[in-house]
Amino acid sequence: MPQRRGRPGYDQEQVIAAAVDLFNRHGYDATSMGMLAERLGISKSAIYHHVPGKEQLLEHALDRALLELEGVLTHPAAQERSVDQRLEYVLRATVGVLIDELPNVTLLLRLRGNTPLERRALDRRRAFDHEVAALVEASAEAGALRGDLQPRVVTRLVFGMINSIIEWYRPDGPLRREEIADSVVAIAFDGLRSRPA
Amino acid sequence: MPQRRGRPGYDQEQVIAAAVDLFNRHGYDATSMGMLAERLGISKSAIYHHVPGKEQLLEHALDRALLELEGVLTHPAAQERSVDQRLEYVLRATVGVLIDELPNVTLLLRLRGNTPLERRALDRRRAFDHEVAALVEASAEAGALRGDLQPRVVTRLVFGMINSIIEWYRPDGPLRREEIADSVVAIAFDGLRSRPA
Repeated sequence: MPQRRGRPGYDQEQVIAAAVDLFNRHGYDATSMGMLAERLGISKSAIYHHVPGKEQLLEHALDRALLELEGVLTHPAAQERSVDQRLEYVLRATVGVLIDELPNVTLLLRLRGNTPLERRALDRRRAFDHEVAALVEASAEAGALRGDLQPRVVTRLVFGMINSIIEWYRPDGPLRREEIADSVVAIAFDGLRSRPA
Repeated sequence: MPQRRGRPGYDQEQVIAAAVDLFNRHGYDATSMGMLAERLGISKSAIYHHVPGKEQLLEHALDRALLELEGVLTHPAAQERSVDQRLEYVLRATVGVLIDELPNVTLLLRLRGNTPLERRALDRRRAFDHEVAALVEASAEAGALRGDLQPRVVTRLVFGMINSIIEWYRPDGPLRREEIADSVVAIAFDGLRSRPA
């Protein structure tokens, strides 16, 4: 028997996706469950059938973005091989997560840390940044990366470059995700200067 | 005769700086002239003595950020010399503007374009981006920059790196602006890979 009940049927994933889109457009605080109900064309009580409340919607979206990012660091390709190859994998895979999880990562990157839930998410994001900074540092110590730049500044700048994708990437635009990942890795490792082959 | 009138005296610059700080903390829409009065410890009418209204405060801050950015492109160092030297100057000087005008540029970079004033500011910001993209393109055509990356993607990524400074730079932190500018130019032109001298 189909689960739909006459009225437009949404599964939990669709309710969450609509909520994340509203959070990103209007800000989490300015978004109400009433706005979500209106957007979906269903009653507020129908929404509470899918999810316990607004904070759980935020939690679910942030958790998903963070699990994907954390998965980049625990992937075998980020564990094996030389430190600089691991770093290259991490940069490339992070671009992939940003593009595949654009709305959820956008929400994560715009967090201000106003609630305990937001602060826990920011702590996990910071732990991710620290692991990448350690990888940059290890690559410099191994002689694979230049040693004249501060690993923490490098990490912030390179992730500034990657995180900017949420500001300008359009899923319906002409750029493929591999093209963007290639450009990020090319700039981060070799820069823009032309070199004799 | 001093201009102060007993009550804490503020000049227009200080009123604008306090307004920009509130806009950046709470968002422009959520900030009221009442909040600004409370912050300064003066009456709302005392504020209207300094400025005609909230929108003029925003306009002044955005105009200042944009004039400084536009000044980077019209500076002689961005007009003379080879295209890649001009590009290097533009990247370095833009980092300087971001750091020197941190609150005003933060306001500019977070604009959503909700009003005609905001859209005019975004148009000017876009014109700046286009001029830089043209410089990247000209540098690639002149053979000074690698030709395998798309100038528009390169421009967005490199400015993503630069603009991220507003997210993590702390004026009272240990990093000097020259150090950050050097790191940006080093990564953008030569990348992180260590090379034989």
